[in-house]
Parts: sequence; C-alpha cells; structure tokens
Amino acid sequence: MDREIRVGLIGFGTIGTGVVKLLQRNQAQIRARLGARLTLARIADIDLTTDRGVKVDRKILTNNAEQLIDDPQIDIVIELMGGYETARRFALRAIGTGKSLVTANKALLAVHGAEIFRAAEQAGVDVGFEASVGGGIPIIRTLKEGLAADRNLAIYGIVNGTSNYILSTMTQHGGEFGVVLKEAQRQGLAEADPTFDVDGIDAAHKLTLLIQLAFGTAARFKDIPVEGIRHVSQLDINFAREFGYVIKLLAIAKQDGEQIEARVHPTMVPRQHLLADVNGAYNAIFVQGDALGSSMYFGLGAGMMPTATAVVADLMDVGRNLLGGSRGRVAPLGYPLAAQRRVAIKPMDDLETEYYLRFMVVDRPGVLAKISGILGTHDISIASVIQKEREHGASVPIVIRTHRACERNLRRALRKIDRLPPVRAKSAVIRIETSLGQ
Amino acid sequence: MDREIRVGLIGFGTIGTGVVKLLQRNQAQIRARLGARLTLARIADIDLTTDRGVKVDRKILTNNAEQLIDDPQIDIVIELMGGYETARRFALRAIGTGKSLVTANKALLAVHGAEIFRAAEQAGVDVGFEASVGGGIPIIRTLKEGLAADRNLAIYGIVNGTSNYILSTMTQHGGEFGVVLKEAQRQGLAEADPTFDVDGIDAAHKLTLLIQLAFGTAARFKDIPVEGIRHVSQLDINFAREFGYVIKLLAIAKQDGEQIEARVHPTMVPRQHLLADVNGAYNAIFVQGDALGSSMYFGLGAGMMPTATAVVADLMDVGRNLLGGSRGRVAPLGYPLAAQRRVAIKPMDDLETEYYLRFMVVDRPGVLAKISGILGTHDISIASVIQKEREHGASVPIVIRTHRACERNLRRALRKIDRLPPVRAKSAVIRIETSLGQ
Repeated sequence: MDREIRVGLIGFGTIGTGVVKLLQRNQAQIRARLGARLTLARIADIDLTTDRGVKVDRKILTNNAEQLIDDPQIDIVIELMGGYETARRFALRAIGTGKSLVTANKALLAVHGAEIFRAAEQAGVDVGFEASVGGGIPIIRTLKEGLAADRNLAIYGIVNGTSNYILSTMTQHGGEFGVVLKEAQRQGLAEADPTFDVDGIDAAHKLTLLIQLAFGTAARFKDIPVEGIRHVSQLDINFAREFGYVIKLLAIAKQDGEQIEARVHPTMVPRQHLLADVNGAYNAIFVQGDALGSSMYFGLGAGMMPTATAVVADLMDVGRNLLGGSRGRVAPLGYPLAAQRRVAIKPMDDLETEYYLRFMVVDRPGVLAKISGILGTHDISIASVIQKEREHGASVPIVIRTHRACERNLRRALRKIDRLPPVRAKSAVIRIETSLGQ
Repeated sequence: MDREIRVGLIGFGTIGTGVVKLLQRNQAQIRARLGARLTLARIADIDLTTDRGVKVDRKILTNNAEQLIDDPQIDIVIELMGGYETARRFALRAIGTGKSLVTANKALLAVHGAEIFRAAEQAGVDVGFEASVGGGIPIIRTLKEGLAADRNLAIYGIVNGTSNYILSTMTQHGGEFGVVLKEAQRQGLAEADPTFDVDGIDAAHKLTLLIQLAFGTAARFKDIPVEGIRHVSQLDINFAREFGYVIKLLAIAKQDGEQIEARVHPTMVPRQHLLADVNGAYNAIFVQGDALGSSMYFGLGAGMMPTATAVVADLMDVGRNLLGGSRGRVAPLGYPLAAQRRVAIKPMDDLETEYYLRFMVVDRPGVLAKISGILGTHDISIASVIQKEREHGASVPIVIRTHRACERNLRRALRKIDRLPPVRAKSAVIRIETSLGQ
C-alpha cells in the first residue's frame, strides 16, 4: 500500500506554488484515493530565492531542469514554466526519457501539440493538460471521457477570464475598455502586456485544443480566425442590451458538414442564455451534443489554487496509470492520432451568421436609405434598426441587426458604406449567436 | 486492433433503447476512440415483442437474464431494469461471475450500494453508474476524478427533472402544483405515480451517491431528511420573487466539521444565482471546493438519449480497463471502501439556516406582535416582513424572512404559533440558501 509516485516540477511560479500547497494540504486525501503517495521530489526554477509563502525543503530546489527531467527517480514531469521553445524542448525531453507529462501550457500545446502528442503516443506515456483550458473546470476530461459516446455538434466557450472580467465590468458598471483594462491591471486581473488575453490569442489557443477534443479532428492555431475585445465600446454594450443581448468573448466551434467552423470574437449572446450570466473571471464551456443536447461546465478559469486542482487531478490520473500499468489508457486528445480526422477550418468569408452593425453618421436625409440599399444589394436583410438622438451637425449612431448573412457579402457592403460621405467612422460589427439552444 | 468487448443489456425500456440506438449510431466513433468494437451481444427483457423503433437481431433477445449474466462470452452487464430486489440480485450475480457492471439505477445504489460496491471491490470489477445522477451530465466522473485533488465543501444539486420542470413552470407560467403536475403527466414529463419525483425521494437517492463521491464518507439514504414540493404554492413563489428568490428543489450536502449536513427540500435560491436559471427538465450540480471555489455542471438529467450517452461512456470506460488490464483502476465511489470515512449526518433539528415563513391569519390587531414575540422567545430574529391586503374577516398572509435560526427552535415556535386563534392554517416554511457563493 505504500507505493510512491515521484513528481518533478519545472516552474515555481504562481501555479507551481499552488501545486505545492495543494499536494501538502490534501496529502492524506490524495493518498487515500490513490493508494499511493504523491511526492514532490524536485522543483526546478531560475529563481530559487524568492519566498513563495510555502514550505519546501531547499534540497529539492534546483536550477537545472534537464537534470530533473533526466532523473530516473522521477516518474512524472510537471511543466509550468510557460512559453514556447524551452517548454517544448523540456516536454519532448521528458517524453523521450519515458516520463509522463503534466502541463498547463495551452500556448505550447496549441502550437506544438501535434509534435508533443505524437512523441507521447510513440513513447507510450501520458500527457495531462486539464489545467490548460478552463483552469479548474474539468473540461478536458469531460470531452475525452464523459462525452465520449456522443457526437458533439458545437462548443461555445468563455475561456479567457481576463477578457470576461473586462467585458462584464464594462456591462455591469460602465466604463470604456481602456479604463477598465487599467483598473484590471491595477488589481492584478490583467497582465502588464494584456495582448494574449484581450486580443483573443489565449482563447484561440484553448479553442485549438477544444476542437481536437470535441470533434476528433486535427486543428491548427494559425487557421483559427481571431478578433479581440479592444474595439468593444459602451455604445455597443448598451445597444446590445436594448436588443436583449450581452457581449461575451466566445470561442466557437461547430461541426458543419465536412468542415469545422471555428472562430474567436466578441459575440452577442441572448440575455436569457446561461452563458450571459457567466461574469467576472469565471469561465464556462457550453457544449451541444447530438444525443446529449445542451450541457455546460462552469468555474474559475484561472488563479493559483483553481488551476492547481487541475494539475494535481492530472497527476493522480497519470499516477493511476503508472500504478496499474495502464499508461496511454486514453489518448491525450481522446482519439489515437491515427484516428484523428483531417478537416478544414471553414474560411471566415463563408461564415453565415446574424450581425450587429453600428454606423456613425452625420444626420442627413437619406443616409439610412443609402446604407440599407447597399446592404440589400449584398443580400443582407435587416431585422431591426435603432436610430436615435438626431442632432444636426453631430454624428449619431445608426444601429442595425441583420438576419443571417454571409461574412463575405457583409465585408463588401461595409467597404462601400464606410466610403459614404455621411459615414464618419469605421463601422462597428459584432456577430450575434442565436443558435445557442438551451 | 480488432478487439471486441461484448456487452449484455438487461432491461430493454426507454434508456435501453437509447443505448442500442447510440451504439449503432456512433459505432465508428466509439471504435476509433477505444481501439476496439463494443458489441451488444445479448438483450434480456420480459417483453420481447414491443417494437422499440430500433433494429435489433431477434436472435440476441432473451427472457432469461440469468443466462445472459452467466454467459462467459459477455464482458460487461448493463442493468437498466430499475427497482430494488431483482436488480440487486442480478447486479451481485454479474459481479459474482467476474463481470463489470454498468447501471443507471440510483434507487438500487442508494439503498444497496454498500453491498454492491463491496462485492465489486472484492471481485476486482468495475461498477459504472454515471447515468444514475444528472442523466447525461458527467458529474460522477467529475467528482471521482476531475475534482479528486480538491476538498469539496458543499454541493447543491437540482437533480430531479420532473420536480424542476413543475417548479419552473409554476414560476414562469403560474398554476398551482396539482394542475401543473397533471399537465406534466399528460406530456409524459411526470410519471402516473409521481411520488419518487415530487416527494424528493429520487433526489435523496442521488444525494446519497453524491455525498459519498464528494466527501469520501459513507452515507445512507434513510438518514437523509427529505421534503417534497407538493406543498409549494403560487403564493410562496410570488413572495419568494418579492424577496429576490426562486424556489428550487435542492439536494444539499455540506461538510460541517465532523458531520455532514444533508437534506432535500424546496429551497429559496437568490435570483441572480446560476442555479436559479436552471429551468425545465434541466439538472445542475453546483459544487463548492476549498481550492477550486465554485463550479457548476449543467445538462439534461433524464431522457432516452441523454441518459444513454452516460451509459455508453461508462461502457467505454469499463471497456478501456478490460482492454488495458486495469480493472478497478478507480474505486466506484472514488475512494477504496477501506478509506471511506464514517461520518454522521447532522440531525435536522441542529440545522441552522434562514427561513421564509408564511402565516395565514385573520386580521386582528396584535397578531404580528404575537407571532414575532413567539419567534423572539425562541431566538429567531426577523430580517423582513411582508403584510398585505388587509381585508376584515378574510384570512391574509403574514410573510416573514428570518435571520439564521436553529431548526429545532423554529419547530417549537411554529407549534405555538399554529395554535394561536387568529392563525387559520398550518404555517408554510421554506428554507433559504444564502451561502451559495458563486
């Protein structure tokens, strides 16, 4: 009964500290569940002096990640250093020595996943990455095993806590993007360089993984159209409210015949939908299944302790496979790579959806007629219009909600509309998602 | 690569038919994921003639469940017949022959679980019961593995679709319980005998399992205090709305020092909480974790196809253990039975919570003073009062929201209040849950 699984941790930052804390705090419970001890045998980091507020035997600290990886006494390597190139090298090296890997690094897996998963499959080791999407929400496990019998039709994810915090603050308390971002940075809820979060890159990394898990298809990060939230204004949030919508940064993927529709962008979600109530730093992944129908998985998508629960759950999972001789029991992406389908991501131009459009015009008779005329000649039909606060001289918004239209046509129409003399600013476009079900 | 797992199904009812459909429809996907075929080798049912709307080779049908169980060609037995005694006998017999078991029978596991899980542990076989709680929501898997590294503090479940449908219809469209129940029965959303659903028994069966999974403690169905929804009236739903609450049948369990607080009853939930938006036949389980914080799992808690997805996911899970020689990889309840803690369920009398109270009184000067006096002498302090529509002669409601109070004191006070001459009906009591977090 006193078996031991020895773990080496690379990256003693926030999440790494959480992992250390959780392994200490829940030691007895983990041992009871597993029938074995999970021992943190070694921690590698560049910085060995900062006090992380957690007791660690200084003898297990090292600067030398390679030595940690190569140590035959270590069974599982946790990679929590982040970044691409060094992390990739360490991950492949760990797999090369026959060790299973646990990581929270979505950027790494979105970009170098194919290489890493292939190496793992060939070596017959496990790769756990529950912490890489949705923080502590067990969405990876759910897609790999819980929903394994169903055919997934669509996923809609609020998977970036920072942008969800900013958008829900803008919605609930007002303030423009720049101001709210600054406040979020002050509170430590947004990074000094927020690019990955607010430009949708992090969400697209996660979507790359979710697509592969949900649909059994290969997906490349660079094929996913991405649009961030910097351009979302209070004006649009308020008009969205009038139309009965809330604006969320959604990572969307749908099975669409022989293609996969995939995209990350600010999206208008019906106010009554559960996703509309996912606020602050919370994440949620809404899944539509052929047999299951709608289901949703909600929780904290980031933070030291929530993310650590996912890392340690992976350690236990991989640990069980070591104890029972069942390594590689479930393929990292749910399907063996040979069974992964190659499916094209549908070009954004071919997208058909409903749109919210806002034009800033100098009020002049006939502007609405001109705009709707251009939309009409591009096969875009109007569902409703809001036109307000007509003041002579000042520019005022004309807001239009369209029926389903083709993105290519929309782009062409907008290029023409934006050149009309009374139109004083680039038109605002936010896609509306009405097929969310529930 | 062409390995085969042979499955025997006992109970060709609604869920059984769904399982057959799903195995046929998603055959290729299941095989790709598993690297083996899942073959439905035999189906046992009393009724072999009814057309279930699904193509099945008549040669695999049998009346003889024992023969199916004893067949050495069969690897996994699915029990979907429901009920207690025969199901228990069949389950134990299957385990006795060294077969793994998959079941959706929460009543069986709530009442005879200890015996069945012990037998399975001794025989080294798996018991999958994902379909027994929350239909297609992978909540069992989530508690056993996804949240395995965390210490759970509390769970709040909407786990009975019928009563949730009735309560949300009453809330959204009006109508008293009896009328809405009849309509639900007409639509096939409630059974002819709705006792299990509307009296909270089914929810308590499920809570018995959830407690064991979430807290690693033994729990007996008969120790769980249960109250159904028959007494919930439009009057209370409307007053709840005025106070900012929605009434839901909740299955609640909390870790409370060395005890477990467990109960099933109609509960007032803050209107802004995610659980308040779980309507119709949907289920949701809200979990509070020490490290993870709040998380929620939402989906269809019943129905042919949603429930079938959970059964087949279990088949795949158990199947992987057969293929990889890792049977018993995770204990059915997440902890080996030897590690299960024995913890008492806290007596209902010791409960401390907030209460909604409604008294029907003939308006007479001093009634409120008398009622609040009695509450006061029992250490129950009043948070707010609604007193309306004062008509001479007719009985009118006095509605009181209390601060946290002890259930024992409340019961004593109500016995006295109900004996006051101006009080014309038994007082209505609904517990309020304000510690739901989010």
